Amino acid sequence: MVAELISVGTELLLGNIVNTNTQFLAEQCALLGLSMYHQQVVGDNHDRLAAVIRQALERADVVILGGGLGPTEDDLTKEVCAEVMGFPLVEDAHTRERIEQYFKNNIYKEIPDNNWKQAIVPQGAIVLDNDNGTAPGLILEKDGKTAILLPGPPGELYPMFFCKVRPYLEKLQPEVIRSAMVKICGMGESQVEDRLLDLIDRQANPTIATYAKTGEVHIRVTAGAKDEEEAKKLVKPVVKEIRRRFGDYVYSVKERETLEESVIRLLEKYELTVTTAESCTGGLLAGRLVNVPGASEVFREGFITYSNKAKRKYLDVSKSTLKKYGAVSEQTAREMATGGVFATDCDACVAVTGIAGPDGGTEEKPVGLVYIATYMKDKVHVERCQFKGNRAKIREQAVVKALDLLRRSILDNYR
Amino acid sequence: MVAELISVGTELLLGNIVNTNTQFLAEQCALLGLSMYHQQVVGDNHDRLAAVIRQALERADVVILGGGLGPTEDDLTKEVCAEVMGFPLVEDAHTRERIEQYFKNNIYKEIPDNNWKQAIVPQGAIVLDNDNGTAPGLILEKDGKTAILLPGPPGELYPMFFCKVRPYLEKLQPEVIRSAMVKICGMGESQVEDRLLDLIDRQANPTIATYAKTGEVHIRVTAGAKDEEEAKKLVKPVVKEIRRRFGDYVYSVKERETLEESVIRLLEKYELTVTTAESCTGGLLAGRLVNVPGASEVFREGFITYSNKAKRKYLDVSKSTLKKYGAVSEQTAREMATGGVFATDCDACVAVTGIAGPDGGTEEKPVGLVYIATYMKDKVHVERCQFKGNRAKIREQAVVKALDLLRRSILDNYR
Repeated sequence: MVAELISVGTELLLGNIVNTNTQFLAEQCALLGLSMYHQQVVGDNHDRLAAVIRQALERADVVILGGGLGPTEDDLTKEVCAEVMGFPLVEDAHTRERIEQYFKNNIYKEIPDNNWKQAIVPQGAIVLDNDNGTAPGLILEKDGKTAILLPGPPGELYPMFFCKVRPYLEKLQPEVIRSAMVKICGMGESQVEDRLLDLIDRQANPTIATYAKTGEVHIRVTAGAKDEEEAKKLVKPVVKEIRRRFGDYVYSVKERETLEESVIRLLEKYELTVTTAESCTGGLLAGRLVNVPGASEVFREGFITYSNKAKRKYLDVSKSTLKKYGAVSEQTAREMATGGVFATDCDACVAVTGIAGPDGGTEEKPVGLVYIATYMKDKVHVERCQFKGNRAKIREQAVVKALDLLRRSILDNYR
Repeated sequence: MVAELISVGTELLLGNIVNTNTQFLAEQCALLGLSMYHQQVVGDNHDRLAAVIRQALERADVVILGGGLGPTEDDLTKEVCAEVMGFPLVEDAHTRERIEQYFKNNIYKEIPDNNWKQAIVPQGAIVLDNDNGTAPGLILEKDGKTAILLPGPPGELYPMFFCKVRPYLEKLQPEVIRSAMVKICGMGESQVEDRLLDLIDRQANPTIATYAKTGEVHIRVTAGAKDEEEAKKLVKPVVKEIRRRFGDYVYSVKERETLEESVIRLLEKYELTVTTAESCTGGLLAGRLVNVPGASEVFREGFITYSNKAKRKYLDVSKSTLKKYGAVSEQTAREMATGGVFATDCDACVAVTGIAGPDGGTEEKPVGLVYIATYMKDKVHVERCQFKGNRAKIREQAVVKALDLLRRSILDNYR
């Protein structure tokens, strides 16, 4: 079965945003075993959009469109797709009710008139409720072809795909595809690939693919078979072998488990509480921990000590340490981590201090130099890291590294 | 003049990588005043690639292709493009020499045989030297149409575009395009459009387009003219009118200024320091402020008080307030903001407390309920917000709202 993607939006044609939806949908389609030969981007223009949809429906079985379902006059995807496929438009009472409900609790008191447009749907279409916005998704089926229309914002498109589109596509596709994910932290992509080369070369089913994320590498093992049980049976030994090869570099083998979730789960498992002491990351590390629902059981308070004065006041970093070694030093990181534990009675603390740039670097301490310390069981472990990239990228890498060091420290001390 | 982009690569069709080249090229084309109606992705397949190139050359004046110029058998872009446009292939002595030169300094001593393939070019093509790799770029001109072939790796494509393609395109394009951005916070996209409808309908040059971000709306005003001065003259009065209509909802008219930057600039302007007191956002608000280089002048420390105990200990929120009204209440937000200022001697504090979910909601206090308070000049201002979406989305909206309230409080108190 062949799928084709169409992204609708002038902001893509103008290069205002990166087309992350297409990457997401392409990856998901590949996981479902759908073939893909074309992806297109077109603007909110009736004739061009109609031509692109017509062409896609000719060469693919399933056409997934993202964007252009908003309430404004520009948004044409639904109207044009219905026209091309020959569906009349009608109001959907259920969707109208959902929009009313959505605005009832909204900060913007009145419902703008144009929002009602979103309650109009092609007659006979499958309506996909949008739990994160007002535009519903739509599935249109005709003459053996399927068009799937999804709202453009990733925060709406992703969950709608997972909850509603994926199960629908799974039913369309005869072969069962199953995959597993092994998530690795603390090793670069080419290092990971080197260790997997023989496995990758040897395997056709399952296949092994690596994906580089900031500070992480994800390894996907995918098998196709006539039923779920057999597909899983093909995946299992390969995952086991990969885990054996990477040991503690593996932080999770759960599809959706993030690095911060794996850390929170470990803290829960060993009944530990943690605090954070952040300088250059300025709250991002704590923010990642609090991403995890229920983080409050193990993370109750954190410090953002951007200035030297704050480092002294809240974390009791000594004046002489700051003077002698500077705020970005192994000694300061060490005292920050220790101070965090003593100021809070937590079991552990992770501290970050570094130079995120663009200014503030010297020859001895260049931009990207970050010290990360963990305090646990009366021991401090400090790592000196040298990250590359701009300010945002350096801070992001520092957060990932801090989470990973915390994870490794828990394993080293409590396992 | 119309441009069209074609990205060639199976890794894009499989969703292994995000198509950042297309965003880059689209943005550059827009800045050069080229119109763009289509972008396409296709794999390394002769027939499909030929069909896509043929179609693009029919509907556009300039077709820019990225990828598929590598040395392997898979790489077909040059061969197929030359075939479609009717160019014979010949060896380019200059490129052959450059490849020899490239490998001379390379860690891999011998030159792989297939690299010589990269010295073959369409006869009569303009060859663009690649200073960061072995595949040269190519410009093919025929019958008023131009195909520009660029190597896929961004580290090769970007500099080649800036140094060689941009000057070439500037000569092709007679019209100069200039645009300005008006950034708005605190109003939804459809509300913004409602207020702009007459302007949008009336204008052809400049054009007005809106883009929704989380908690923000960006309005782009774009004009084309025979020279830069005239283009700017067309943009200016429209920007002025938009600013008049939206007043303090406008936080910036600078292309690259973010909301957090505008807040930091205001704090600097009025020589104010600020601290943060975060519960449900758990550091993300501080993290956004620290995104701004030089934030340390106005932001030195922040509190992450996730537990009630931490709210009492660091911010002096009273036990009776927490007991009577709960942690998520106007009263607690008020005391957090006040406590932040008194604990730090900062001029201002912004405090956030809410229920990010998925658990913890009640009928009276549902998931998404967030109180945001600002303390400034002995006055506290509190807003009750009800956000929608999942945990991440609620927290992100709360951060944007907190930044905006801080901005508005500074304007109200100091302007």
